[in-house]
Parts: sequence; C-alpha cells; structure tokens
Amino acid sequence: MGNILILYDSRTGHTQRMAEYVARGAEKIPQSKVKSRSADEATPDDLRWCDGIAVGSPTQFGVLSAKMKRFWEEVAGGVWGQMDGKIGCAFSSSGGLGGGAELTNLSTLLILMNYGFLVFGVPDYVGEAFTLHYGAVATREPSEGNEIAACERLGERLAQWVAAFAAGRASMDLGPVSQR
Amino acid sequence: MGNILILYDSRTGHTQRMAEYVARGAEKIPQSKVKSRSADEATPDDLRWCDGIAVGSPTQFGVLSAKMKRFWEEVAGGVWGQMDGKIGCAFSSSGGLGGGAELTNLSTLLILMNYGFLVFGVPDYVGEAFTLHYGAVATREPSEGNEIAACERLGERLAQWVAAFAAGRASMDLGPVSQR
Amino acid sequence: MGNILILYDSRTGHTQRMAEYVARGAEKIPQSKVKSRSADEATPDDLRWCDGIAVGSPTQFGVLSAKMKRFWEEVAGGVWGQMDGKIGCAFSSSGGLGGGAELTNLSTLLILMNYGFLVFGVPDYVGEAFTLHYGAVATREPSEGNEIAACERLGERLAQWVAAFAAGRASMDLGPVSQR
Amino acid sequence: MGNILILYDSRTGHTQRMAEYVARGAEKIPQSKVKSRSADEATPDDLRWCDGIAVGSPTQFGVLSAKMKRFWEEVAGGVWGQMDGKIGCAFSSSGGLGGGAELTNLSTLLILMNYGFLVFGVPDYVGEAFTLHYGAVATREPSEGNEIAACERLGERLAQWVAAFAAGRASMDLGPVSQR
Repeated sequence: MGNILILYDSRTGHTQRMAEYVARGAEKIPQSKVKSRSADEATPDDLRWCDGIAVGSPTQFGVLSAKMKRFWEEVAGGVWGQMDGKIGCAFSSSGGLGGGAELTNLSTLLILMNYGFLVFGVPDYVGEAFTLHYGAVATREPSEGNEIAACERLGERLAQWVAAFAAGRASMDLGPVSQR
Repeated sequence: MGNILILYDSRTGHTQRMAEYVARGAEKIPQSKVKSRSADEATPDDLRWCDGIAVGSPTQFGVLSAKMKRFWEEVAGGVWGQMDGKIGCAFSSSGGLGGGAELTNLSTLLILMNYGFLVFGVPDYVGEAFTLHYGAVATREPSEGNEIAACERLGERLAQWVAAFAAGRASMDLGPVSQR
Repeated sequence: MGNILILYDSRTGHTQRMAEYVARGAEKIPQSKVKSRSADEATPDDLRWCDGIAVGSPTQFGVLSAKMKRFWEEVAGGVWGQMDGKIGCAFSSSGGLGGGAELTNLSTLLILMNYGFLVFGVPDYVGEAFTLHYGAVATREPSEGNEIAACERLGERLAQWVAAFAAGRASMDLGPVSQR
Repeated sequence: MGNILILYDSRTGHTQRMAEYVARGAEKIPQSKVKSRSADEATPDDLRWCDGIAVGSPTQFGVLSAKMKRFWEEVAGGVWGQMDGKIGCAFSSSGGLGGGAELTNLSTLLILMNYGFLVFGVPDYVGEAFTLHYGAVATREPSEGNEIAACERLGERLAQWVAAFAAGRASMDLGPVSQR
C-alpha cells in the first residue's frame, strides 16, 4: 500500500535526472516506498509490486523510446490485464522546446491506459507560466527551478493518489481480464 | 459517494444512444447514482456533484464537437482545479470505421486530464475482436451487440472505480490549485 | 498559385501576435499572397482560395478552441473533400509551458488531415534548444526571440511547400470525394 | 520521380498483408516504382530513394511497435533532416476494434512529421461507413473487402501525391537542417 515505481529510460542522462526529482517528490508523502528502475533493470515483479508508476522516456521523434516501448511489449506483456486501477503518469526530456515532449508523454500514457492504469496530469502551476498538465517536461537537462519543481510535483501527486486510492483498489475483485 | 455523470453531445442521436447504454452499465453497480445530461443542459453543479464522469461526443473531424468543447470552456471553466482525482472516461460515435472515433475520445481525455480527472480505458474485450482500450467507440448507431456491450462495460467500469476510489479521494485535502 | 491563409482564433491577443509573425514569414517567399483571417471573419471562399493554411488557436485544455472547432464544423463543412492536397500547419499559444500547446497543435492537424490537407512540422531548430517539430508554440505572448523565429519559420516553410507543390496539385484531377 | 517505399513491421502477418494491398494500390499509378521492405530489411538508402512512404505497424498498446520505432531511432537517424517534403502515411492492424489502431497510426505520423515528411489521411469512404481519415486500419487479418479497399486506396493516394509533388520538391533547395 503506497509502492511507487519510477521507471525510466535515459539516453543522455537528462531523463534519469528527472526520475531522481520525481522520486524525491514521491518521498515527500509519508508511507510511500519508492523504487527507481531503468528500462533495462525493471521486471514484471516491479510492476506487480507497485501501486503507482511514473514512466519517463527521452523525447525521440515525438514518441517514447524504442527501449521503453520494448519493455512494455517484451518484458511486461505477461502482466497485461493485471494492472487495473493502478495509477500512472509520464515525464520526458526533449532536445528542444516544441520538440515533442508533450506528445512523448502522450504515447506513454496511451500504453499505461492500455495496461489498465488510471492516468493523470496535474492542473497546478509550479512557477510562472510553467505547469505539467500532461506530465512533466524538461528541455535537455532539468536544471531550471521550474523543471525540477514540475518533476517533484508529479511524484508527490502520484504518491498522493496512491495513498488515497490503493486501499480502494485492493478491496475490488475485478476478476481476470477477458481476451477474445 | 458513487455519483456518476453521463455527459454527452449528440448530433444524429447515435451518441445519445451510446450514453443510454453507458448509463445502464453504471447502474449495474449498487449504490451508484447515475445522471445523464446533454452538453446543453449540464451545469457546473453537475460536475461538482459527480465522483465520476463519462463524456460522449460525436466524431467530428477527429476531435470532440465544438459544442462539447464549448461546455468545458464556457460553462465548466469555473470548477477547473476542483475536479482533482475524480474519475473520467470517453465515448464517441463516428460516421465510419477508421474515421477518428479513437482520436475523438483522445481529445476528450486530454480535456478531462487538464481538469484533474484520472482517466482510463478498459483492457477487456467485450466480444470477438472488439474492445474499448481508450473508451467506447461505435460506427453510426450503436446497434451491434459488441458496440452496446462496450458502452455498458465502460459505464460499469467507471462505476466500479468510483465505488472503490471515491472514499479515498474524499479523505484527501489537496488545497486549492496554484495558478500562475 | 501561392495563396497562403493565416487563420486564427485568439482570446488574449497572443495567438493573434503569432499569426502576424507567421504571416511575415510567409511573405519572405516571393509570389506568395498572404491573407490573415480570424475564425469570426473567415469564409469557405477563403479556404477555396488558399493553397496552404496555417491555423492558430489558443491552448485551451489541450485542444483547439471551441470557436476554431466551430469554424470547421459549421462554416467550412461545405468545402470538406475539396481541400485535397493543400498544405497545412498549426500554431498555438498556451498559458504555461507543459500546458498542452503541442497537443493543441495536434488537434488542429487532425482536423486538417480530415479535410484532406497534407500537414507538416519543421525539423529545424530556430535557436538554442527551440524547434517547431509539430507547429509553432509560444508561452503566453510570443515575445521571446525564439518564439518569434519559430512563427516566422513556420510561415516561411508553408509558403515554400506551397510554391513547390501548388502547380503539381493543380495538375491532378482527383474527382469528387466518395461519401458513404 | 515516383518512388514509393512500403515499410512495415508485422508480428502475426496481418500488417504484412496490409502492406501488400497498399503496394498494389500504389502500383495503380503509372510510373510508380514500388518497393516493400520490412523493418528488419530497410536501410537509410531506401529512405533516400523514396519520394513517398507508407509505414505499417501492428497496434501494440496504442503505439507503433518497438521494432518499428527502433528503425527510426537507430537505422534511419542519419537521414533525419534530409526527408523534407517527402510524403508519408500510415497503416496498422489491431487485435480488436477500439483497440488503438488509429492511435498507432498517429504515433507513426508523429515520427514522419519529425523527419520532415508531409503526412496525410484520406477523406474518401471506401465502402459503407468505412474510411481511412488517418491512415488504413484493419482488425486482425485484412480479409474484409472494406479493409482491403482502404489499404489499396491509401497506396493509390500516396502514389498520386508523389506523382504530383515529387517534381516540385526536387526543384527546391532547402539547404541543410539547422540543429542547435
């Protein structure tokens, strides 16, 4: 109850830095257990373990990275249909503003929804004209205050939703998913 | 606790028919209170009242209808930032398969996320090769068994999430949204 | 041959400012005729007239504005299926970075594709870590050099494509669209 | 002038079948040279060679396959910024209706736009209530008449645009892309 997985792929190290800030945000909520895993390290058991997940990918042509996609196809596939009602969100670092970070987050959210996760963005602004309505975005290294604050807020909000909802989900018996 | 709003816009009556099936699905869950409103009728109080929402729009050029968009801009705007953690989903009837029903649902989900709703699709298949991974879709009138089953499943799943989660959300004190 | 329509909706004036810069960019290409119209002013004849179009909308909940959507549903509907092979692109001003400007451009591009436009983004960077891969984006007023340069580049590129392609399109006889 | 590349990834053989029908459609246009390549076979030279491309991927969690994404990241990356103004489109076979085929096509189109392709869908209906507004979609094997007709129409339209536009593009000197 309160297990948060930060799953990321990083090419330049920038998305990994974002992952660290997201984790820091999640840790602000008492009782959260936070675990960070790269796409190379994560296992289906990490997905089973978590109540909520933040998934980060570099922006590569406006869609999440092949490595992160491969994780969901080849590694995680066996737990598809067992993630119902867990909570998910996305973050991405791009090479340039206007370069597809929002769209990359969108592609990540589409995968999470397909797996059964409930997904969210955050209405709040973390600074002057800076928000994370569809997940956290950063341009290159998340060095600026607002970019760091967006990552932290994302992790914090994820942990809040998990704290509020994990007990409810555990009380449901949804049965196995139908596949036809 | 357990209030479900079915909000729809309908041009030909097809999306309205979908709304009826979504409502029927939600009513399968005991304790759900289900209210249906067209985009012309709905008020901010309907949004305040609900714990979960299913939003239906005709597919019009791959994006939700202007009338439904207008509702979220002009009618609902005042409750933006007060919807955090409520549960949302989408449905759409299109004029043709391959005509943008999934993309229309996507546009609806983007609005709901912006408002603070957690959004979901359903992994399950409701019939042979028929699912609702990003909300329910129908081609023209939802007359076929699978299309009706998809609408019902969407409403049922929405009511299930609301039943599981509404108490958790009520226990949170998120404070007012920051706007800068 | 070389007619460029800049079509915009603006709530705060920011998207209108972007429209002015997009127009200025288009005018860099000799032989371009550039016309700017708000969503309130534009007519079906403006669409018939143009060889290429740049459509701007404020970012409102991650989807183009109801007013701009309404234009495509109610005003422009009669020329649907007569736009085949014209060139289109998008721009948007948002209230905050990470607030949905890219997604708003996406919704605009979906409408344009539905009408038969070929749509594009621009690979080039217009400044340090600033690009327009899915159309031009600005945060609030496009006052910063990069934001202005992105708008100008968008218009310039649109006019370049039109100059290169309009003669080719005119040579085709596609016949009327089939609607069933 | 008139070189069409059909690039596909296929897991079950269904998307490969679609590719065959898309190729057949392209061949209807005289002077078209049509080449089909799987994601395993294609090379950067295939991209340099083509004037237009149709990219097919299985629908896997609402986003193009990791294998196809990997092609664009690792194999094709070197020709990024040299594709400006070529024409592109998408097709996808999914496991179920409502399962993400339109969204998978969307992810493919985002990559193509990022590379500089102009992308399109087709307004026409190819049968009763069956269209391809955002590319061709099929549910499992494209055995039904409408699904086959949609693939053929996609290829035909691609070849038409290429025939009309390739000469225009060749006449442009866009210069190298700026990367900063």
